[in-house]
Amino acid sequence: MTALDPRLQAYCDDARARNLDELREWIAIPSISTDPQHRSDVRRCCERVVAHMRAIGLTAEVLETDGNPIAYGEWSGAPGKPTALIYGHYDVQPVDPIALWVTPPFEATVRDGKLFGRGAVDDKGQVLMHLAAIEAHLRVRGRLPINLKIVVEGEEEIGSPNFDAAVERYHARFGADVVIVSDTAVYSEDIPALTTSLRGLVTWEIAVSGPTSDLHSGYFGGVVRNPIEALAQILAALKDERGRVRVPGFYDGVAELPPAVTAELRALPYDEAREAAALGVDALTGGECERLPLERMWYRPTLECNGIWGGYQGPGSKTIVPSWARAKLSARLVGAQDPARVRELVAAYVREIAPAGVRVAIESDGAVRPIVVARDHPAVAAAVRAMTAGFGKAPVFIGTGGSIGPVATFDRVLGLPQILIGVGLPDDAIHAPNEKFDLAQFYGGIVTMTALYDELATA
Amino acid sequence: MTALDPRLQAYCDDARARNLDELREWIAIPSISTDPQHRSDVRRCCERVVAHMRAIGLTAEVLETDGNPIAYGEWSGAPGKPTALIYGHYDVQPVDPIALWVTPPFEATVRDGKLFGRGAVDDKGQVLMHLAAIEAHLRVRGRLPINLKIVVEGEEEIGSPNFDAAVERYHARFGADVVIVSDTAVYSEDIPALTTSLRGLVTWEIAVSGPTSDLHSGYFGGVVRNPIEALAQILAALKDERGRVRVPGFYDGVAELPPAVTAELRALPYDEAREAAALGVDALTGGECERLPLERMWYRPTLECNGIWGGYQGPGSKTIVPSWARAKLSARLVGAQDPARVRELVAAYVREIAPAGVRVAIESDGAVRPIVVARDHPAVAAAVRAMTAGFGKAPVFIGTGGSIGPVATFDRVLGLPQILIGVGLPDDAIHAPNEKFDLAQFYGGIVTMTALYDELATA
Repeated sequence: MTALDPRLQAYCDDARARNLDELREWIAIPSISTDPQHRSDVRRCCERVVAHMRAIGLTAEVLETDGNPIAYGEWSGAPGKPTALIYGHYDVQPVDPIALWVTPPFEATVRDGKLFGRGAVDDKGQVLMHLAAIEAHLRVRGRLPINLKIVVEGEEEIGSPNFDAAVERYHARFGADVVIVSDTAVYSEDIPALTTSLRGLVTWEIAVSGPTSDLHSGYFGGVVRNPIEALAQILAALKDERGRVRVPGFYDGVAELPPAVTAELRALPYDEAREAAALGVDALTGGECERLPLERMWYRPTLECNGIWGGYQGPGSKTIVPSWARAKLSARLVGAQDPARVRELVAAYVREIAPAGVRVAIESDGAVRPIVVARDHPAVAAAVRAMTAGFGKAPVFIGTGGSIGPVATFDRVLGLPQILIGVGLPDDAIHAPNEKFDLAQFYGGIVTMTALYDELATA
Repeated sequence: MTALDPRLQAYCDDARARNLDELREWIAIPSISTDPQHRSDVRRCCERVVAHMRAIGLTAEVLETDGNPIAYGEWSGAPGKPTALIYGHYDVQPVDPIALWVTPPFEATVRDGKLFGRGAVDDKGQVLMHLAAIEAHLRVRGRLPINLKIVVEGEEEIGSPNFDAAVERYHARFGADVVIVSDTAVYSEDIPALTTSLRGLVTWEIAVSGPTSDLHSGYFGGVVRNPIEALAQILAALKDERGRVRVPGFYDGVAELPPAVTAELRALPYDEAREAAALGVDALTGGECERLPLERMWYRPTLECNGIWGGYQGPGSKTIVPSWARAKLSARLVGAQDPARVRELVAAYVREIAPAGVRVAIESDGAVRPIVVARDHPAVAAAVRAMTAGFGKAPVFIGTGGSIGPVATFDRVLGLPQILIGVGLPDDAIHAPNEKFDLAQFYGGIVTMTALYDELATA
């Protein structure tokens, strides 16, 4: 059975309380990147992470970007060995609604084996797993088995707007053989997992314009095309009755699942009725309803309306033909779908199906490529062994329906293979009140990362 | 040729300046019924109207309602002659956006033969036409040829919420043979017109609910039915591609136009391209597009979306599956359509076509019956003769697409025939900045009403 070097294991076990204390200190800094009032907290958090990197023996510095700074550390004392670049983020989501937190979000509190606090698992705790693993190696053996670079950014929760430019800018410094990302989750407490795909992302805003101003629906109702109705027609025409996107070419690059992957999905426990009930719906009727829910969430693209507004929204009624209506759309992409092409295809289709008598303007934004981890890469096999050491059983392969922009940046700019090895749980309430990190996952994650560097040295 | 008694005509001519001054005084009182800050102005305006009624020789009083008071006047010195009840309103719309007014809305100003000011034509000026006509009769002849009651309410611009109850309460006092309403417009400056129909009105609000809270579109996009999309599907399914409402039974009570009425429509000048350009649209593609625009506006029912909202509406993107979406609908009704039945039919249809996986709640409100004036009623012939006296040529018959709740109330509660004899112009900018009343229409209207009472006496 795959297991960690006993001296490293002993060090990790002894260091539990210290690592937990350090995580509490990180959580105590409200590094909310979306709120300008917390700008100094964000920088303070970055400096704290850099200080901890130095304390454990890394060469570290604050790297400036056009936005919040990056905490950067490295150790390059293993010539001839591979170099891994670890990515994470120290910024966190806002805490509203604050009233729903059982304990204050920035006073990390352990209850029932779980540490509650904003950023506990997303992503401060998962970044600290790596620093704890690095510390174990440096303290026990005086060296690391591979070269390591660790990039901890401060704008992930606002979409990493300056990260692409930073990667271009620090291109030479960020050179590596593999990228390690710990900002994902396992399948469940009992089922460790490696994530093998992330969906890409594109967004649009559609503006439908009709008459110059709102019109009296008595005088003009029946002759002027209603922009809200035109927008509703456009939205309704985006998918067929089986939930398949009608935009021609949308599915280009989307392959049917290999039978082996379908078998993986069927082997995972998934109680559709319980999931539906937990979300407050009768049944999981969204998307391509003839396919398995896990396939739809992980391996199929979506086209979703995220917001809509137009006309009168106040109390009572106002009988107008509104002047305009707007909607926000986003697509999650998979496989070899090209974000730039999907942007154009959807925009062209919307323009084509728009009814006569209204004008349609479409803006699109964001172009995160989908990520597919090459399962046959030796680093993946190393990750499987490391996770087995950390959690006592081999991980399954899963997808995730979300998108992590920086991962796509490493793929695009640096052309690096990626390992997506996070240890969060699906019920961790990230971005929500009472975010938590199960301590068993935290400590298992530290052992996993400690083992991972050894495994990568011989992969 | 039909003409007014020359002594009455001379009185009307001599009184022009005085009537204009009185109208200026009325406009100077900002009787905006929707704004609680103007409550005392509303009452002051009511008292001013009552004072003027008394000054010209009517028995008049302020009638209290559960809302703003009614200015009520009567003259009943013609036993054996018919009784006409005149309806109008002294309240006005707000004046925003104030910056677009060329002269202040409550300082009535004459420019180019037009009086500009809030309420000039809607409806203070048109109420004053009747008081000027009554004054002419009482001063010249010492009596009126018929019995008159005049009801000027103060809540028309907010939907007359207390008017039904007031009519029930003052039922006995309001007894009459015919109702005269001057709150409508003619076809154009050169084409005087009598309105022979008003559309009815029903409104709905549809709430579509999905998951308990907004969901991450990455994790749940593709399995949870999107409430905005479900709402868009519902709205898109309300009409077919030719603009016909698909709700079963919706058109019950809607008759095809008699050939004579179609001929009336075709005889009216209507430049579709110019109308479209004036509204800021390419073409009049709304509603049942195979029918004539005037037919669609006056004689066909509509089902219109007045507002929609749900999900994220701020800057940038927020990739959620929203928890809910809402829309406001309204229908304009014609002929023998029953508002209560249409309310139910649309609600039932929406529930029926709602896709699986969302919950739909529908509230409906308002039930204004459509009004169809019986063209063969002797009072209509009297009105034709009166308008000929006032404007030098016989009026055409037109419809109007709007709804006037109180007219439907008189129809329903008192069972009275109605004459819809307003003299506004389509470009009077009612409810908008720079509302105006053409003085030629004002003075012609006074002559028309003066003649009307004579004509009704012998009708």
